[in-house]
Amino acid sequence: MVEHVVIQAEERETGRLEAFSDGVFAVAITLLALDLQVPKLGNAASVGAVAQALARQWPSYIAFATSFFTVLIMWVSHHSIFKLVQKSNARLLFANGLLLMLTTVVPFSTSLVTQYLRSPAAKMACAVYGGTFVLISLAFNLLWYGLLHDRTLLRADASEEVIQRIDRSYRVGTPMYVLATVGAFLNPYVTIGLCTALWIFWAFTARGECEQ
Amino acid sequence: MVEHVVIQAEERETGRLEAFSDGVFAVAITLLALDLQVPKLGNAASVGAVAQALARQWPSYIAFATSFFTVLIMWVSHHSIFKLVQKSNARLLFANGLLLMLTTVVPFSTSLVTQYLRSPAAKMACAVYGGTFVLISLAFNLLWYGLLHDRTLLRADASEEVIQRIDRSYRVGTPMYVLATVGAFLNPYVTIGLCTALWIFWAFTARGECEQ
Amino acid sequence: MVEHVVIQAEERETGRLEAFSDGVFAVAITLLALDLQVPKLGNAASVGAVAQALARQWPSYIAFATSFFTVLIMWVSHHSIFKLVQKSNARLLFANGLLLMLTTVVPFSTSLVTQYLRSPAAKMACAVYGGTFVLISLAFNLLWYGLLHDRTLLRADASEEVIQRIDRSYRVGTPMYVLATVGAFLNPYVTIGLCTALWIFWAFTARGECEQ
Amino acid sequence: MVEHVVIQAEERETGRLEAFSDGVFAVAITLLALDLQVPKLGNAASVGAVAQALARQWPSYIAFATSFFTVLIMWVSHHSIFKLVQKSNARLLFANGLLLMLTTVVPFSTSLVTQYLRSPAAKMACAVYGGTFVLISLAFNLLWYGLLHDRTLLRADASEEVIQRIDRSYRVGTPMYVLATVGAFLNPYVTIGLCTALWIFWAFTARGECEQ
Repeated sequence: MVEHVVIQAEERETGRLEAFSDGVFAVAITLLALDLQVPKLGNAASVGAVAQALARQWPSYIAFATSFFTVLIMWVSHHSIFKLVQKSNARLLFANGLLLMLTTVVPFSTSLVTQYLRSPAAKMACAVYGGTFVLISLAFNLLWYGLLHDRTLLRADASEEVIQRIDRSYRVGTPMYVLATVGAFLNPYVTIGLCTALWIFWAFTARGECEQ
Repeated sequence: MVEHVVIQAEERETGRLEAFSDGVFAVAITLLALDLQVPKLGNAASVGAVAQALARQWPSYIAFATSFFTVLIMWVSHHSIFKLVQKSNARLLFANGLLLMLTTVVPFSTSLVTQYLRSPAAKMACAVYGGTFVLISLAFNLLWYGLLHDRTLLRADASEEVIQRIDRSYRVGTPMYVLATVGAFLNPYVTIGLCTALWIFWAFTARGECEQ
Repeated sequence: MVEHVVIQAEERETGRLEAFSDGVFAVAITLLALDLQVPKLGNAASVGAVAQALARQWPSYIAFATSFFTVLIMWVSHHSIFKLVQKSNARLLFANGLLLMLTTVVPFSTSLVTQYLRSPAAKMACAVYGGTFVLISLAFNLLWYGLLHDRTLLRADASEEVIQRIDRSYRVGTPMYVLATVGAFLNPYVTIGLCTALWIFWAFTARGECEQ
Repeated sequence: MVEHVVIQAEERETGRLEAFSDGVFAVAITLLALDLQVPKLGNAASVGAVAQALARQWPSYIAFATSFFTVLIMWVSHHSIFKLVQKSNARLLFANGLLLMLTTVVPFSTSLVTQYLRSPAAKMACAVYGGTFVLISLAFNLLWYGLLHDRTLLRADASEEVIQRIDRSYRVGTPMYVLATVGAFLNPYVTIGLCTALWIFWAFTARGECEQ
């Protein structure tokens, strides 16, 4: 009986860290939709005018969907890591804080893409957009290698196979986002295309992470 | 004892998916209120002027209430489904992600209705509004048929009766929202009327879903 | 063992309803701070000019603090009720939905007070402000009498004394908010004074509700 | 068995208070990012123009990061306290409410710094910024000494060593934030420097609080 209560108490500790992180992820992912602007055409607007104005906003739809699913896989990835964690320490807490801070920046960099995708500054906007994800990847690495560095933070029953799989996925993820960032200067759609390809690829392959 | 701990651990897994979804639903439903604008009449405004300006905003009150309760029944519906779910997989996760993404769009489409309900573009605004709910219905179907397709995701004790009831409600819901969308081109109030009728009807009949 | 698992499952059901409600309360109470506007004085602004501009915004500080603590006691009140609830039904769910919808309106009515407290329209703004709390009180009554009407929704161990105490507090609360609304037409500060007095009074007397 | 259920019920009580607080912390910390503004340069903007405009916004990046990590350590500090709490009372509830209210003000005071850091009013903006954290410190003290005053609110197993460590940290924190506030009138960067130094110092020393 005593052992049982102890297990529960421990779960509750990282539970609050996860709940707080989920809160930040949930608010940040919902704020992405604030980037969808209602066209202001006044009370005499015709059906055609509104339809055209909505159609002209296509960059915001692309940027919104790309960001939404990219943040979503980041949340899943966060979840995959924390399923292995037994307790946290200062380093973990601040690596997680850095990760959350950068995640709250995604609505800003998304809005930058929306604003400039059809201007000559599109390369710049997409480079900042990709760069945000590079920084988030690095924060994930900081979190992950902090855990591998101090294995006492991991649950005793953490499977070595899962650890290897997550490890491999981080070795692929970061260079891909670097490519997406550098690629912006070739063509801004390289960034958006690569980010989209990444979450679709991820959705179809990384089944292990989702089978919860 | 061991079995007990295992049951708890499993509940916690989908628990975090539900908590994240609840977070997104809660933020999105609260952001609907940002559509209620305070009239800017300056420091010399009289009681009558403010009263009139508030009264003139009636389209925003209608759109706000309709969206609030429609998102609320979507949350209840989401809850009904997840009460049957034992574990998730990649398909479930992304169908759920699509559902959440479209839910965060509701404040945008609500704001579109508010903006254009008294303009000639009202038909367009209401069609987009209804269309958002059609897409949400389809995402619900994707989620639901993904579950029926792989019954191992369902809890062993999921009652066949509840499954049939949810199944029936989806077969009614999607066509009704299609009707609400198409009806906008007849008269924009058809959309608002049908969406209102749907959640009131739902509130009075779908007791099973609410008896938690 | 079986009985234990059943108890947990039931707690989890209303648990998700409470979690969703808490999410809406938490977002709505945080959005109140969006009403605090940074004065836009440009890059040549002096210390004195900014200090003066901040001081001139005192109505927004009063309205913000009054609304924050009023929503806070509403959250505590919501918590007190749900501590007695064992399961929910459609009526409870929609009464709770109405309550949450009206709570999300509080940032709007607070902003109305901020905007017009120093204008001739202050009476109107404060009447709308008080009126929002009257509607919230009525939604609480709907929720509460729905529970008393169907006692099977209450936990078997719900103390009759606690039920009586909550019952008494609702009989006082609603008329007080009606008074605060009507009083606005005498003097807008009657509304703010009464709302402030109510939460301070509540904080000092309703200890039972807080001793969790 | 009975004792086990009782322990769980108690955990759930303060659990909802913590969940609500976490919600407010999560929303407030995410809203900080709304202070990052996308430069509005139109569709003819060049790469250089956008890069320059983004670079010119450096005060908002500094203010954002400082606030994010300061609110983060406040959340950790809140967590450290509530790990010791067994039940709450009215005083605790309102001290916590005051703390949350002041936390929701941080995005406002951060925005004030962003707006005026390069103007002559920077001293004023930074004093208000530091002052917000002084008030938050005082609210933490109110919460903490309320707990020490009524030890029945603390868990029976709360370690005296942890209590002493938290006690010591509050005796350092408040004067440091007072210094950061007063220092603004010497040089506004004293405030930002001290606030940054405080969370970095905290991250490297207060390991006990993070080892969850």
